[in-house]
Amino acid sequence: MAACIFCKIIKGDIPSFKLFESDKVLAFLDIEPLSRGHALVIPKHHGAKLTDIPDDQLSEILPVVKKLASATGAENYNLLQNNGRLAHQVVDHVHFHMIPKPNPEEGMGISWPAQKGDMDKLKQLHEALKSKM
Amino acid sequence: MAACIFCKIIKGDIPSFKLFESDKVLAFLDIEPLSRGHALVIPKHHGAKLTDIPDDQLSEILPVVKKLASATGAENYNLLQNNGRLAHQVVDHVHFHMIPKPNPEEGMGISWPAQKGDMDKLKQLHEALKSKM
Repeated sequence: MAACIFCKIIKGDIPSFKLFESDKVLAFLDIEPLSRGHALVIPKHHGAKLTDIPDDQLSEILPVVKKLASATGAENYNLLQNNGRLAHQVVDHVHFHMIPKPNPEEGMGISWPAQKGDMDKLKQLHEALKSKM
Repeated sequence: MAACIFCKIIKGDIPSFKLFESDKVLAFLDIEPLSRGHALVIPKHHGAKLTDIPDDQLSEILPVVKKLASATGAENYNLLQNNGRLAHQVVDHVHFHMIPKPNPEEGMGISWPAQKGDMDKLKQLHEALKSKM
């Protein structure tokens, strides 16, 4: 994808602070970090959303996130991958954020508007989803 | 882990709305959902944080998250995995949230206190982390 900023980083047309690279995966520092060590792991296969990436292009993602988390020494960290504008996605090439959470002020903030579980609705939904899995 | 609620769900000692199960992975509905279709994917291998799970126990996680996202039909969704209390982790068995974001009110809320990237600091950090990868 010629216009994709992450494809340009993969090609080397835009410089990055690379931390890991293989045939399938690239990891690099986020240059507008939420905390020290905030890094991105991306599949080289271009796709906007997770559901656009073939399974075999995803196999190294979580092992690389582990490596990053270990390298930073973070005791607390979040892994986040956003799909779609409503879900906070800005760049339309799948990317996984590994974000250390060293204190309440730095790192990502999460709000959690949990709904009271309605068992009847959940049961109906369960049936509906199972048939599609 | 006898006391772990997710290990009890895996064993079947606590009921759940199972959506997928294999030797390594279990997926089920979150019963206090942030939105319709909010589900969890967990490795059966017990470990508190991502860095505690062997790579070979993680290979099916993202493909199953994809299946869940597709089954819900969500156009916008977040994948979140928290490590440590500061990072919003409540249950100490690694779990990946697949959370549809149908509108601004439902689903997870994210705040993003990005820092201005200091290129000198990033360069130093890059060197320090590369040596640990």
